[in-house]
Amino acid sequence: MAVQGVRDVPETSAAVDFSAVDAMPANTVVLVVPSWVDEVAATFEGSFEREDGRMALAVALSRHNVERGGGPFGAAVFLGSELVAAGVNLVLDSGLTIAHAEIVAMMRAQRALIESPRTRAGAYSLVASTEPCCQCFGALVWSGIQRLVCGANTGDAEAIGFDEGPKPEAWVRSLEARGITVTQGVRREEACAVLGEYVRRGGVIYGREATTRSRT
Amino acid sequence: MAVQGVRDVPETSAAVDFSAVDAMPANTVVLVVPSWVDEVAATFEGSFEREDGRMALAVALSRHNVERGGGPFGAAVFLGSELVAAGVNLVLDSGLTIAHAEIVAMMRAQRALIESPRTRAGAYSLVASTEPCCQCFGALVWSGIQRLVCGANTGDAEAIGFDEGPKPEAWVRSLEARGITVTQGVRREEACAVLGEYVRRGGVIYGREATTRSRT
Repeated sequence: MAVQGVRDVPETSAAVDFSAVDAMPANTVVLVVPSWVDEVAATFEGSFEREDGRMALAVALSRHNVERGGGPFGAAVFLGSELVAAGVNLVLDSGLTIAHAEIVAMMRAQRALIESPRTRAGAYSLVASTEPCCQCFGALVWSGIQRLVCGANTGDAEAIGFDEGPKPEAWVRSLEARGITVTQGVRREEACAVLGEYVRRGGVIYGREATTRSRT
Repeated sequence: MAVQGVRDVPETSAAVDFSAVDAMPANTVVLVVPSWVDEVAATFEGSFEREDGRMALAVALSRHNVERGGGPFGAAVFLGSELVAAGVNLVLDSGLTIAHAEIVAMMRAQRALIESPRTRAGAYSLVASTEPCCQCFGALVWSGIQRLVCGANTGDAEAIGFDEGPKPEAWVRSLEARGITVTQGVRREEACAVLGEYVRRGGVIYGREATTRSRT
């Protein structure tokens, strides 16, 4: 598989305590989200009343992740203006290729809602610092998310070498046909700046083809 | 979200011990695979030398899952003829919409390879009782899997009401262009029989639209 041994990546693995993972039986898969993710969310100075403010958090998460050696992607699930769960790209930390920011945020939100069901009205939105890759696009379809809000766009990511994978050309229309509204380009410049920062730092390149910078 | 409260589904939740999950801190997401999955794989009477035999396991897993109230999908990751990890659809058990059989098998395989890296040669294959939905198609692209082997096809699943979601029309070609070979229709009739059995039993229907039987 593409990612074996990535737990040895020094810069990132230091941020995660694997002791709980190692104690779990073999029939479990555990994804550990570094505690700084929730700290960034809890201490975030800004309002989540508007989409713009919610995106500011997603972009801040992506920036913090880059500073810690992770991929330049952040995401969060909101119920109206209430933050339900935050996520960042944890592919390198976890060794799981599925652990994109959007997936982390959606899995955490679903777990949170099982523990503490929400009864208030409002739409569930996924706010992502970059438009989803083929995997996260597909996962969104089944997630129960009703609204997708994106920062940087697919072209922005691809322009600097990221691979967003084979999503349907009409992916926005596909989502909207299934009742998931899509808003693009919110705080796009800020989100692009984080993508650029990742490249400037020479962010870890991995995947099947070393000539392509895979979407981490 | 679509899945809140699914932990209360009586038939399936009895099969899973959630005590380990409940003891984990809030910054973790834990996927517990019922122990019968590995028992079925370990006691499977058949050879994994040929693709046909490997598919027999995937179909057997799907059948066992239906018998326990789960979705009619099974999958396994092999390195050549060596079983690396088995998975079944755990959407209802876990409350995670991402927990399709293919995703469960791939996540488990990646964790297993971190714990015990394999040095022998051979291609990693994902053997799935039904062709992947849009989500699992996308996840495959980043997984490191080099070969996809499918039983029932997309049309078979859709013919009885499952929704495979918006994958690119040329999804097989998309995978092959990325170096992932695809074999279709292996033990298709057996795999279809399990899909039919799920419907016969009135398998749980959930998702955003109650009129559509979502891919569980």
